[in-house]
Amino acid sequence: MKKISLLLCLGIFLLPAVNSPAADISISEASSECIDCHASVHPGIVKDWQNSRHANIAPQDAMAVEGPARKVSSKNVPDNLKGTVVGCAECHMQRPEAHADTFEHNGYEIHVVVSPKDCSTCHSQEDEQYSKNLMANAYDNLAENKLYQKLQRSIIGTKKRSKGRIICGPADEATKAEACYYCHGTKLKVVGQETRDTEAAGELEFPVIEGWPNQGVGRVNLDGSLGSCSACHTRHAFSIEMARKPDTCKECHVGPDVPAFKVYAASKHGNIYSAMHKSWDFSAVPWTIGKDFTAPTCAVCHVSLLVNGDEEVVSERTHQMNNRLPWRIFGLVYAHPHPQSPDTSIIRNKDGQPLPTSLDGTIAVEFLIDPKEQDTRRKSMQAACLNCHDSSWVKGHWQRFENTIQKTNGDILIATSIMGDIWQGGYADLETNPFDEAIEKKWTDTWQFYANTIRFASAMGGGGDYVVYANGRYHLTQAVLEMNDWLNLRKKFDPSKSKGIKQ
Amino acid sequence: MKKISLLLCLGIFLLPAVNSPAADISISEASSECIDCHASVHPGIVKDWQNSRHANIAPQDAMAVEGPARKVSSKNVPDNLKGTVVGCAECHMQRPEAHADTFEHNGYEIHVVVSPKDCSTCHSQEDEQYSKNLMANAYDNLAENKLYQKLQRSIIGTKKRSKGRIICGPADEATKAEACYYCHGTKLKVVGQETRDTEAAGELEFPVIEGWPNQGVGRVNLDGSLGSCSACHTRHAFSIEMARKPDTCKECHVGPDVPAFKVYAASKHGNIYSAMHKSWDFSAVPWTIGKDFTAPTCAVCHVSLLVNGDEEVVSERTHQMNNRLPWRIFGLVYAHPHPQSPDTSIIRNKDGQPLPTSLDGTIAVEFLIDPKEQDTRRKSMQAACLNCHDSSWVKGHWQRFENTIQKTNGDILIATSIMGDIWQGGYADLETNPFDEAIEKKWTDTWQFYANTIRFASAMGGGGDYVVYANGRYHLTQAVLEMNDWLNLRKKFDPSKSKGIKQ
Amino acid sequence: MKKISLLLCLGIFLLPAVNSPAADISISEASSECIDCHASVHPGIVKDWQNSRHANIAPQDAMAVEGPARKVSSKNVPDNLKGTVVGCAECHMQRPEAHADTFEHNGYEIHVVVSPKDCSTCHSQEDEQYSKNLMANAYDNLAENKLYQKLQRSIIGTKKRSKGRIICGPADEATKAEACYYCHGTKLKVVGQETRDTEAAGELEFPVIEGWPNQGVGRVNLDGSLGSCSACHTRHAFSIEMARKPDTCKECHVGPDVPAFKVYAASKHGNIYSAMHKSWDFSAVPWTIGKDFTAPTCAVCHVSLLVNGDEEVVSERTHQMNNRLPWRIFGLVYAHPHPQSPDTSIIRNKDGQPLPTSLDGTIAVEFLIDPKEQDTRRKSMQAACLNCHDSSWVKGHWQRFENTIQKTNGDILIATSIMGDIWQGGYADLETNPFDEAIEKKWTDTWQFYANTIRFASAMGGGGDYVVYANGRYHLTQAVLEMNDWLNLRKKFDPSKSKGIKQ
Repeated sequence: MKKISLLLCLGIFLLPAVNSPAADISISEASSECIDCHASVHPGIVKDWQNSRHANIAPQDAMAVEGPARKVSSKNVPDNLKGTVVGCAECHMQRPEAHADTFEHNGYEIHVVVSPKDCSTCHSQEDEQYSKNLMANAYDNLAENKLYQKLQRSIIGTKKRSKGRIICGPADEATKAEACYYCHGTKLKVVGQETRDTEAAGELEFPVIEGWPNQGVGRVNLDGSLGSCSACHTRHAFSIEMARKPDTCKECHVGPDVPAFKVYAASKHGNIYSAMHKSWDFSAVPWTIGKDFTAPTCAVCHVSLLVNGDEEVVSERTHQMNNRLPWRIFGLVYAHPHPQSPDTSIIRNKDGQPLPTSLDGTIAVEFLIDPKEQDTRRKSMQAACLNCHDSSWVKGHWQRFENTIQKTNGDILIATSIMGDIWQGGYADLETNPFDEAIEKKWTDTWQFYANTIRFASAMGGGGDYVVYANGRYHLTQAVLEMNDWLNLRKKFDPSKSKGIKQ
Repeated sequence: MKKISLLLCLGIFLLPAVNSPAADISISEASSECIDCHASVHPGIVKDWQNSRHANIAPQDAMAVEGPARKVSSKNVPDNLKGTVVGCAECHMQRPEAHADTFEHNGYEIHVVVSPKDCSTCHSQEDEQYSKNLMANAYDNLAENKLYQKLQRSIIGTKKRSKGRIICGPADEATKAEACYYCHGTKLKVVGQETRDTEAAGELEFPVIEGWPNQGVGRVNLDGSLGSCSACHTRHAFSIEMARKPDTCKECHVGPDVPAFKVYAASKHGNIYSAMHKSWDFSAVPWTIGKDFTAPTCAVCHVSLLVNGDEEVVSERTHQMNNRLPWRIFGLVYAHPHPQSPDTSIIRNKDGQPLPTSLDGTIAVEFLIDPKEQDTRRKSMQAACLNCHDSSWVKGHWQRFENTIQKTNGDILIATSIMGDIWQGGYADLETNPFDEAIEKKWTDTWQFYANTIRFASAMGGGGDYVVYANGRYHLTQAVLEMNDWLNLRKKFDPSKSKGIKQ
Repeated sequence: MKKISLLLCLGIFLLPAVNSPAADISISEASSECIDCHASVHPGIVKDWQNSRHANIAPQDAMAVEGPARKVSSKNVPDNLKGTVVGCAECHMQRPEAHADTFEHNGYEIHVVVSPKDCSTCHSQEDEQYSKNLMANAYDNLAENKLYQKLQRSIIGTKKRSKGRIICGPADEATKAEACYYCHGTKLKVVGQETRDTEAAGELEFPVIEGWPNQGVGRVNLDGSLGSCSACHTRHAFSIEMARKPDTCKECHVGPDVPAFKVYAASKHGNIYSAMHKSWDFSAVPWTIGKDFTAPTCAVCHVSLLVNGDEEVVSERTHQMNNRLPWRIFGLVYAHPHPQSPDTSIIRNKDGQPLPTSLDGTIAVEFLIDPKEQDTRRKSMQAACLNCHDSSWVKGHWQRFENTIQKTNGDILIATSIMGDIWQGGYADLETNPFDEAIEKKWTDTWQFYANTIRFASAMGGGGDYVVYANGRYHLTQAVLEMNDWLNLRKKFDPSKSKGIKQ
């Protein structure tokens, strides 16, 4: 082991003091060797790491921390990893036999893609929780659902125009990786080796990985594990500060289908965050309400370990993320109680479709959490609210929120009944693909965009522009009216088809 | 009165030094008793308050400040309030007889909802100014306008599908509270009492308040007063810093109908704010141009007391907010001179409709300010501009802005003439509700969204994306063309109806 | 020359220490005289300048800096300018004979509009580079392109309704200045003189300038030069910090046609910027990767001089801005290799239209850079990427990006083929203006908004919401389907017209 002082002599290694006296910090020989080259070849990576907690504390010191301030959740960490900081080798050389992309690199067995299973060496609890998260299964939840595959194809499929129709064929891999699977995660696969002529070290062999690069939340890794910790804890800073700020979530939650960031940024909580967060402490563990922050960010409600001023735990840390969520407000096609299993591809509604609700609004009850579990989750969410709001406030907010779930579901039922008549009248084709015609897209607008937006704004903001004019009730109503207008025009000029329609 | 040192002993009360030596700060016995429990029960609230100016200076000290730095505008504050900081009791026990939600709580008469009339004990001038603000009347301005009620119903009403039509019935209370009235303010009403089993103190009685929670700008309070200071000065921080940042205004001014925040954020002023505001002083009173800030925020132009480097007053503080506004650029359906009275429900256009303009563009002249008053307000707005721009710049900007008011009004006149033909031809129904059909929604798009966006971008940014491609002239033109296309198609295939149409 | 200490006595001049000991700073007599009045008349301007680098270092000291830290690129600066800081007179009195707006003002020859040619006295390299930028030619590139003029008219033209059609006449000057030419730049022209009664100095004569105010990137100045440095280096702060932050670019790059800012803000790079930039150094020249910043802003990739930790140059500073850009992803109507000349009005496609691509997708090859130049630019862009990403990451990203260029171009080919059939069938009129009917606007939606958004999100973010649901592939597909639906309806009910249509 080289002492860090060696590197300090090289003049490229200025360590900030984080919790530990510099004398205690040592770096493994392997990592040190990595840095010898990569500090020049990839200075941005090395610098990020140097400023990170990983570069500034060894597991044995991190494990000495007792109580809620402890960040290493594993009870046992291999002895050979305890004494040095967590450097390049400690992650990229973990469990080499498990990774299909392991390759020989200057005498070491290196793998490119670090997986949650690698991270679980020190952070086992987070890994275990995260595996119960819908996000961990985001690849299969999309790729293994035949109906969602039709939706996917109708959006990103390669288009052809033929006989007055637009046909959406399968999407190519590059488009998939950049579109849906950018967030959901790609399925990684080693497809060969290649020799690259590197500037620093001449010709070297590297694995060729299909689906790379990707940091999606449900990435299927080369050791078979699911997820990517760097989706939120950006490599190689691994920053808790960054993960706690709403910008991180924005990366996948800003579009009209899940406008969580937009809604938050326009809410009172988001206003307080924007105006005041420069004086908050985003690194404190545990995170003290009122002292470290004065309004919730995404992480406050969904992830972080919160304590009050008396250091009593208000919310336990969770990386499962849905265990404070009674409802899944992302409509498919209606909002519904949260699925029981993180693998949603197993769900079948009463009509046999792989959907949590039927087109008539019936929920696929045996696959979803029951009212008792909903109540537990509601209470666990509200525990945080009650630190700044009295119970009448919280109750009032929640009643409006659940009313909105019912009302928006009601509106989608109307939109779907119009769509049903359109299919029944033969004005659009349900069988081939229920999502690939103009009027079908208008129908998906209603539940993918507008009902979702209203529910997010209700849940996270208690109302405001996104409930009304900003992709909210105004647009939901408008789309329903336009669907109706579309059908009426066709019924008028092509009445033969409308015999089967009741409305 | 307990001295604050008592609380310091409890270890929950770490006061920052704000203007006054700690020795002078005392807290009333009543507030102290509140905090004894609520510091545990609602630590977020108590912490916010502790960090606020209210917790750190007593009115007698605040009133000793002379000149523009003075924040307490009331000349007389009751003696019993002068000597202690403004704590829980000082607000929630003000004027108990006036509040319908006053209830007995541990021997005190408490009310839940603090109103502007309570705040006016110390801030009488702000209360008086605010009462002249359209915002103070935002509840009635919407709820008491029969035409706006039709618009409201056409957006948030409970929908039914019947005989090929979508019928919008009245909206339910929960939806109303979360939609329009989230910003406009709800009408609060005590509808009963309830017993809650509190963790801290066992069973307690509380009032049940309909319309709660709400912080809308025109909230109808339980003492009959109008408005909510915490709409901008977020409870319980009462922060001038927060109110001066544009994020506060964003909460209600980000949607496509009033995209003030979006337009600002994309303007040169917004650019300077975003890039440089971390070094500005948002707490200074008065606020010095160039020294405390280098570009306007919303508050600079519309609210704050501004001085130049010579400490000469550039703009007086106002909470009326429209007294620097010659034009109301929010079209109903055309932009128009600002209404004279904050109560706009009294306005009638020449056709007897409760609108500031007629559908043919004629303004309801006797209800709106006259050109002389417009000129006064223009000058009072431009006083701030002239500190960083020479008069030719300001004049050029203003000419373009007023040209844009005329041109967008002209475009809306065309959109409305198409709509008129559609009604006249019987292709849509004007009488029942002029806003509840697909083509009518496209018409409201033109004046609610696109013309407004153009005018806001012209006024606040002098141009840019929001004037053209971002819900601007592109979309306005497109919507007009689509209305025309819609009518032409129907005229072609249902010519019988188009006899009455002149175009 | 008055010593700065004189002004300090006036109490209005508190200089921060920037690089130079205060004793060395002197201000010219002329500038000092300007400030004597304008510190009162325009305190915001004077204060911004006082805080700027221009007010705190004289050219002779700036020129003494060797190597990449040097900011004055001119090798020779006139002797009379070397010894004093760059004040009012040094810019507004530069080359008086060259400026049509030069006027006599208190004994000095002053011009209102400072141009890049004035700035080039000290910053000649930046001026030269910028003149090769498409942006410098943004006025003529729009105003001298007959086809773009039709597009412009179809958006901002003065509308009339006549015989069932909406006619877009020419736009008025004020609308033009506020719309397209707000960003593109106006053509300035002195149209007279006027006497103004100034508060500070009684009656004074000033030039009247048409097209003023404007800070557009391609402004045609009164000395015939093109551009406005203050578009990014906001007057009178001239801040490198501001220009390096993405908010500056947002001013013209936020709309759906070029949603660069939105895409960036939702990307991983944007996330890192938002969460971490408060600790970055935006003033350092050169700009060190990993030390001064940890993720790129717009300036990092497109403009700034970057070095690595060993102070080796990674990217040379450029104000040409397209010399790291192989592709122009802004479709007209297809994405294409970058134009060779900054003057794009000379481009003709194979059909003689002033477009870089034909409607069938063929590129105007002789006016665009060749694959070799594309390769050079690609490498020069990727040089920055490789500091934080290994070459397989960068290659994978680039392959997806170029795939997306091809796929989106393919989608636009389909949209255009539908549009072609619509024109051919006589359902819309190609000749008069291909952009001024409802269905034509839907066609322009596909390439102006959706294909562009997808490409920007692919290039800058590697995917995410803007590639799919946020004006991305979802909306592109939807628009194509709606165009098809529109045509099918008309073919069905007006089949006579559809004879000539092949599809």
